[in-house]
Amino acid sequence: MRRVVPMDWVPAQPGDPIKEIDTPALILDLDKFEANLKRMTDFAARAQVRVRPHAKIHKCAEIAHRQIEACGGGICCQKLGEAEAMLGGDITDVLITSQIVGERKMRRLAHLARAYAPARVGVCVDHVDVARQLAAISQAEQARLEVYVDIDIGQNRSGVQTPEAVVELAQILLASPNLAFMGVHAYSALAQHRRGVPERREATDRAAARVTDARDALLAANLPCEVVCGGGTGSFLYEAASGIFNEIHPGSFAFMDIHYAKNEQDPAGPKFEHSMFVLTSVMSVGEERATLDGGLKAFSTDTGPAQPTFSGWRVRSVSDEHTVLMRVVEAVPIKLGDKALLIPGHCDPTVNLHDWIVAVRSNTVEALWPVDARGALY
Amino acid sequence: MRRVVPMDWVPAQPGDPIKEIDTPALILDLDKFEANLKRMTDFAARAQVRVRPHAKIHKCAEIAHRQIEACGGGICCQKLGEAEAMLGGDITDVLITSQIVGERKMRRLAHLARAYAPARVGVCVDHVDVARQLAAISQAEQARLEVYVDIDIGQNRSGVQTPEAVVELAQILLASPNLAFMGVHAYSALAQHRRGVPERREATDRAAARVTDARDALLAANLPCEVVCGGGTGSFLYEAASGIFNEIHPGSFAFMDIHYAKNEQDPAGPKFEHSMFVLTSVMSVGEERATLDGGLKAFSTDTGPAQPTFSGWRVRSVSDEHTVLMRVVEAVPIKLGDKALLIPGHCDPTVNLHDWIVAVRSNTVEALWPVDARGALY
Repeated sequence: MRRVVPMDWVPAQPGDPIKEIDTPALILDLDKFEANLKRMTDFAARAQVRVRPHAKIHKCAEIAHRQIEACGGGICCQKLGEAEAMLGGDITDVLITSQIVGERKMRRLAHLARAYAPARVGVCVDHVDVARQLAAISQAEQARLEVYVDIDIGQNRSGVQTPEAVVELAQILLASPNLAFMGVHAYSALAQHRRGVPERREATDRAAARVTDARDALLAANLPCEVVCGGGTGSFLYEAASGIFNEIHPGSFAFMDIHYAKNEQDPAGPKFEHSMFVLTSVMSVGEERATLDGGLKAFSTDTGPAQPTFSGWRVRSVSDEHTVLMRVVEAVPIKLGDKALLIPGHCDPTVNLHDWIVAVRSNTVEALWPVDARGALY
Repeated sequence: MRRVVPMDWVPAQPGDPIKEIDTPALILDLDKFEANLKRMTDFAARAQVRVRPHAKIHKCAEIAHRQIEACGGGICCQKLGEAEAMLGGDITDVLITSQIVGERKMRRLAHLARAYAPARVGVCVDHVDVARQLAAISQAEQARLEVYVDIDIGQNRSGVQTPEAVVELAQILLASPNLAFMGVHAYSALAQHRRGVPERREATDRAAARVTDARDALLAANLPCEVVCGGGTGSFLYEAASGIFNEIHPGSFAFMDIHYAKNEQDPAGPKFEHSMFVLTSVMSVGEERATLDGGLKAFSTDTGPAQPTFSGWRVRSVSDEHTVLMRVVEAVPIKLGDKALLIPGHCDPTVNLHDWIVAVRSNTVEALWPVDARGALY
């Protein structure tokens, strides 16, 4: 079970100029990242809503600490392994915004909550069997968990469908001595990338109506509903304005990516900049061609390939370890060995391919941050 | 620069039944894997061609050892970091089938070759500047490298275009005291997935003609050309039959994936089975819906999503950590917590997402093998 080779390679050292960074490498432009964070913090203050940024995009405790310093509160995770990495990195308030199912995973969750107590550890449920098993295991393991009922707001991916189901789950959770029922969680990944502002607003308004029904059903049954949370970078503006959500969970705003940049910008909200890039090198050149040393293993292509930050060149093809650029118009010639900076199509699965975030400012490496929860998919 | 959290989680222990494996996990069916390996070994013996399997698909020294035990010789890598992981895992014959460009990478390559001598370390070149710099650095670092001239056989991704360019590069390499000119390397990723047998054969025949011209030009200039190598799982049959290639580099045959399985099967060659799978669990259920706990971070989707091994369900959507299945016909009901086995669309970038290969036989875990070069994209 040993690892034969420790992966102790680092792409750069603090103080290195950008052009000396080994490639492919994940680059964070600190000025832009900090500006994005400030925009979100300022927005939340104006809108009087709590922000719990989603860590599934960055998987990095260093970034989580900076987000908590700016926004207060805690962070979100999507996976148990991410929560473990964040708690191990001294983050003391973690909400897993999905379901943890099966005895093995539940025991691990309970062990984690007990080991890091009094850190807050939250999780979502959408099924009575899961709620009952979680109650039994948290009691047996003497662990305290915060639990949210997950509501389906139109994506049909997870979550309960009716206010009655929310009440039933809340009653099970409230009857458990080791589970703290916190409220409801509602998120639609689909709503985040509806391109037009009216479509995203309308999707979120419909979600808010469903969530309001759930909250009202809880209150009518004399049950509490302290937290109403959810939302992402494409929809948080409308959750915040809904009057029902009191906590938003955006993640991608910190880095941005091409997929989010294609959304119509709502002038009512903050405008975020690309702060996350993949740096590559030209490893082969040909007639009107430049082949870069990063491909499918350096950035994800599920929403399209990463794109050059410079003009005159288009991505012709991406394979495991290569991206081939072709010149389309008169452009600055690219030479063998040149560096090429790309904007990821989709940040989350791109960051997950890298061990290190190379944090740069003014063309110089300022720090290297480990992607602590890289590969924590369990 | 420390890692905050050591990723010491393992999805299973030897002896565990498959149903106890934590998910998402990468599963290798050992009976099928060994059968695939035997089919390739038998083919190579019949065809009288050397096999140097490509390790970019598995990134696992344990698998490389088994391949070398079966096929003799060495393995291929695509990246310097992969070569480092394989050499560190006691593999003593490694060919990097791509260009290593830039002083930093070349020095690392030279250090590696010197540190692991007398292990054989090979690399490809396609540019005179690179050949000259490699000659200088290998001499300065007192490292011995085997070097192959990379020939473009129609993909326009890397490689030189003309026999004259091959001769020019060979002369530079032969003049260097620390570089051993081995021969020519020629590979087209595009040719591997032409669906019809005639198209793949024709693409390979054209490639073989170009390679023959290069070899003949070398011989005419009184230069050696010991090795003619290249090819992949989609084309190796035709390289082996060409009479010019004496070494083939297939990788995916060991695992197979949906993308390769879509190729028309040539009855003249061995037929490989799927041996590599992604095991997931059902984490949420709804009306005709089952949501699995693995998505874009558990398998790549560049050639389409992973597909269930069972019938009656289709993949509706894949997001970062979820795959949503919808029932399409009468099928066995799927329950919350059930395990679901998926066949990856594209093995190489899928394996790269995982830390462990869970090797199973007869529904029991036999071993856990680290994906040693996971993330070794530099």
